[in-house]
Amino acid sequence: MTGAPRAGTGTNQEAVRRHNLGTLLRHVHDSGEVSRAELTGRMGLNRSTIAGLVTELDELALIEHASPATGRRSAGRPSAGVRIREDGPYVVAVDLGVDRATVARVGLGGRVFDRATATIPPEPEAWQVGATIAGLVKQVVTTTGPDAALLGIGVAVPGLVRRSDGLIRHAPNLDWHDVSFGSIVLAALSLDVPIALGNDADLGALSEQRRGAAVGVGDLVYISGNVGVGAGVMSGGRRLEGVAGYAGEVGHLYHDPRGGPCHCGSRGCWETVVGAPAIAEALRCSADQVPRLGDILDEMSTAPRELRPIAMDLGRGLAAVVNIFNPSIVILGGYFLPLFRLCRAEVTAGLAERALVPARDSVRLTLPGLGKDSVLLGAAEMALEPVFVDPVASLAGAVTDASARLAG
Amino acid sequence: MTGAPRAGTGTNQEAVRRHNLGTLLRHVHDSGEVSRAELTGRMGLNRSTIAGLVTELDELALIEHASPATGRRSAGRPSAGVRIREDGPYVVAVDLGVDRATVARVGLGGRVFDRATATIPPEPEAWQVGATIAGLVKQVVTTTGPDAALLGIGVAVPGLVRRSDGLIRHAPNLDWHDVSFGSIVLAALSLDVPIALGNDADLGALSEQRRGAAVGVGDLVYISGNVGVGAGVMSGGRRLEGVAGYAGEVGHLYHDPRGGPCHCGSRGCWETVVGAPAIAEALRCSADQVPRLGDILDEMSTAPRELRPIAMDLGRGLAAVVNIFNPSIVILGGYFLPLFRLCRAEVTAGLAERALVPARDSVRLTLPGLGKDSVLLGAAEMALEPVFVDPVASLAGAVTDASARLAG
Ligand SMILES: [Zn+2]
Ligand SMILES: [Zn+2]
Repeated sequence: MTGAPRAGTGTNQEAVRRHNLGTLLRHVHDSGEVSRAELTGRMGLNRSTIAGLVTELDELALIEHASPATGRRSAGRPSAGVRIREDGPYVVAVDLGVDRATVARVGLGGRVFDRATATIPPEPEAWQVGATIAGLVKQVVTTTGPDAALLGIGVAVPGLVRRSDGLIRHAPNLDWHDVSFGSIVLAALSLDVPIALGNDADLGALSEQRRGAAVGVGDLVYISGNVGVGAGVMSGGRRLEGVAGYAGEVGHLYHDPRGGPCHCGSRGCWETVVGAPAIAEALRCSADQVPRLGDILDEMSTAPRELRPIAMDLGRGLAAVVNIFNPSIVILGGYFLPLFRLCRAEVTAGLAERALVPARDSVRLTLPGLGKDSVLLGAAEMALEPVFVDPVASLAGAVTDASARLAG
Repeated sequence: MTGAPRAGTGTNQEAVRRHNLGTLLRHVHDSGEVSRAELTGRMGLNRSTIAGLVTELDELALIEHASPATGRRSAGRPSAGVRIREDGPYVVAVDLGVDRATVARVGLGGRVFDRATATIPPEPEAWQVGATIAGLVKQVVTTTGPDAALLGIGVAVPGLVRRSDGLIRHAPNLDWHDVSFGSIVLAALSLDVPIALGNDADLGALSEQRRGAAVGVGDLVYISGNVGVGAGVMSGGRRLEGVAGYAGEVGHLYHDPRGGPCHCGSRGCWETVVGAPAIAEALRCSADQVPRLGDILDEMSTAPRELRPIAMDLGRGLAAVVNIFNPSIVILGGYFLPLFRLCRAEVTAGLAERALVPARDSVRLTLPGLGKDSVLLGAAEMALEPVFVDPVASLAGAVTDASARLAG
């Protein structure tokens, strides 16, 4: 993501053209229907160049003309629109939760065609989860048309994912250490297709910025409540990754001297106070209900008294997030979504108690624009990323007969 | 900093040329002497374009040929080097500390020509500090040659600086709120010259990445100990700013339930434990020695016992920094420089106690490559920034007779 290849050096012309193809496709993906006049303005290219790119993306079966009545050769009418082709290529998105996995088939433009969910047993073996996910992938892919290409698979993981190779370094609530889960899923599918893994909170931030509560926002934090607590941070429009991809581990900020031991080895981490086990205990739920905490809170219409001090502590910890990142939006995802809905006043009061005034004045707490699908759709966006870098190369690596091969 | 202007649209050719001039100048600034062959490779431009840019920067008196014996018209010898002209334009850098201000005249290439320091009384009025700094500026500018241009002034501030206009929102240890200090300094100088303000820790990170301990490092944190505690963060090669410029306020992370009240309104902030007043108290120094803490620690050859638990707490707080930002280097600046030198084992043990293993494995704690000058040189880099964006415009806004005008 270091900008456009340099123009004018001759040997790079093909790279520049592919970059422009990808950029145009990303504009259509982000905006839905776009006119050629808008594309000319946004991309800073002239009309004939845009027309050539549109023709090529049309021939690649990625986009189509939005006003078919005017015919395909409407280059003389620059305001004719283009849009994503519904029968075009797709990706498979996987939201790997702690007690369940959700898999969806998602097209360009972010449209969810099919989805399937299965439960995951406590402390599961990675290969078992891989097999479960492979089964769900087969379900969502069977409805695909015979020509649609599978571009890749994106998996959201509740844990630390190494950026260089997608290794799951540590997923505490699955009790996984150093699991090459991408290879496990491909082995279970017997399919050679690009697969990418990412941290769940990072992917929540990505999709909320692309088509959720933070469109056009450069500085945002997505807080995931998914048994554990993590943050996905976008700063100046770019994801905060850190050198290896582990940035954003706010769940282990020191928070409470009375807090118990944390799975990370420390005591009193924020996660020990606002994590799902602590909330479930306060609500006197049994331990096996911990992964279902989001559903339990969803069903409440008013907050039980026990929830209020936890909401205050959620706000106090958010103050650290606000002081550190100075975001304009903090999005509360996962089980924090219903918790914030139930206890908005307490969360806001906790924030006010510890946030520095200038940073607090700049920030707004909000619910995810994509509801419970932020992380799933973020996994789809991650899997789609290569097609916006180079559509030709991405299509060359796609699997065109996935439904037939997975049915066999 | 959104990349090069787009080539090929005709009206932008002048903008592209100026961008290229600035980029070439930045390469020479960063590297010292550079050959034309290196410039050709780094900038992806052909030899004749590089030669034309070099000629223009030479005519602007910004750079000179490194081998004058071969003559000025050596375009046929592409490996002839260029370097910064010593009598070229300069900036004035100001490091506004809590008990003293240091001012330096700094040239392109980061060379410090002159410097001057004055003490600042406790809880000073902004206009008094402005007058003090104006006096120091006059001192360092008097030695300038008659033709050298003052490009601008950069001021490092121990507090929150609003990015949009440089307003000092809050400098706790000066007790300043909403001070437009840039205008105050210009008023005291009676000079119309660009002036930029930045947070001290941010500027320490900037200079350490450009020519200190973190050259070529994309993910680093500079921790400033300057009475208060702050962090300057570079992530993926870019400064973490936040929406308004306030990111990095790690000094107010919750740290110690026994910690006292903090000037921010909270209790138990990391700064209340590892800030200069707490350390001075542990060492039984009097309150008026607090701003001199760095000097006091500098003179120690072994750590007194009282320092060791504070060093552990420094490390524990650094663990939060490491968990959140996943940097490859953390640079300990200000009075943390001698503290880390004295108690390296305790700091490292504190870090190990609370950092997540994958993030801890990626990081190295280190001393500033620029010693006590990181923040001062960062202020110079900030003031130089416009000349690397558009040298022609920057020179047009410079003051060519500053020494004469300030002497009057
Ligand atoms: Zn923890
Ligand atoms: Zn504080």
